[in-house]
Amino acid sequence: MGAVTTSKEPKQDRSRVTRQRLLEAAVACLAEHGWAGSTVSVVAERAGVSRGAAQHHFPTREDLFTAAVEYVAEERSTALRALAPSGPTHRREVVEAVVTLYTGPLFRAALHLWVAASDEEQLRPRVTELEARVGREAHRMTVELLGADESVPGVRETVQGLLDMARGLGLATLLTDDTQRRNRVVAQWARILEKVLD
Amino acid sequence: MGAVTTSKEPKQDRSRVTRQRLLEAAVACLAEHGWAGSTVSVVAERAGVSRGAAQHHFPTREDLFTAAVEYVAEERSTALRALAPSGPTHRREVVEAVVTLYTGPLFRAALHLWVAASDEEQLRPRVTELEARVGREAHRMTVELLGADESVPGVRETVQGLLDMARGLGLATLLTDDTQRRNRVVAQWARILEKVLD
Repeated sequence: MGAVTTSKEPKQDRSRVTRQRLLEAAVACLAEHGWAGSTVSVVAERAGVSRGAAQHHFPTREDLFTAAVEYVAEERSTALRALAPSGPTHRREVVEAVVTLYTGPLFRAALHLWVAASDEEQLRPRVTELEARVGREAHRMTVELLGADESVPGVRETVQGLLDMARGLGLATLLTDDTQRRNRVVAQWARILEKVLD
Repeated sequence: MGAVTTSKEPKQDRSRVTRQRLLEAAVACLAEHGWAGSTVSVVAERAGVSRGAAQHHFPTREDLFTAAVEYVAEERSTALRALAPSGPTHRREVVEAVVTLYTGPLFRAALHLWVAASDEEQLRPRVTELEARVGREAHRMTVELLGADESVPGVRETVQGLLDMARGLGLATLLTDDTQRRNRVVAQWARILEKVLD
């Protein structure tokens, strides 16, 4: 943003706040009502924003929801980056944090969007591209945080499998609160991962 | 069924065939069009069955689709049971077979139903109960096929993590064909599992 302030800033700030509120409302709608129940009108009302203002920011429903999932992805990445410095002693913590990224309302919203995208031609290419990008970023950060050496054969696939497991654990929480079982699985696989990576 | 035949059998056979066709059509509809696009009428038409006959077998949409997912679960269990005898030398084969159960159109149909159930109060308890049953059965069979000893601490959670990974790999195939990556992950995790279980 730089140090120079202009008279435009308050308006830009308001616009940014409106956009942010729309994105947060879109994520909450998707997580609670799924794709079918999530329209621009519903999201605008939830955000306390007029339909016109919502459409100024996001001309189509697809624009709004892909932006919402991109926002979720960025939030999840920020959460992962905020973790303590990596190193072999922190591996269990890293595994726990990665799994946390795939549970909770953020992942739930993404899941609804994926399933909707698998049937909707208009949505599919955007969500596929976005998911590929998010997947690469999550992988890169997980490797870094685990202090894993991908030049060693098998390490890359070990980390990928961990992320797949995290995704599967996220899916398991969709219908029931599965926290206790999940914690035991995570503890065991963190132990296994420590042995494999050392 | 026993050895005694009665004059009722041909009618029962026809009824069984109709039921089977409805279930197969319901699974195909769910996998292709998701929950929103899957009604009893659409399924009946696809199965070449009258709407009345469909409603005779399944009075409500929820009846039809929970029966369809139960049918899918049984098909998947049968496929798993049909595997070669278990034992340490066949473990990679078992891991591959388990992952196969969580990819392909059968899992895809189940996934659509889970996501729909997470938002639909009428569907949720049935699908949750069904999923718990299917999950227990998949776990039991995987333990048996792997020749895993669950009295050893950690073994139970190791197998659970494997099933979660299989579920996550299934989710990854929802938007893109991910076969090559999946094969590499499965090969690596099968190696890890062999070491852990020996």
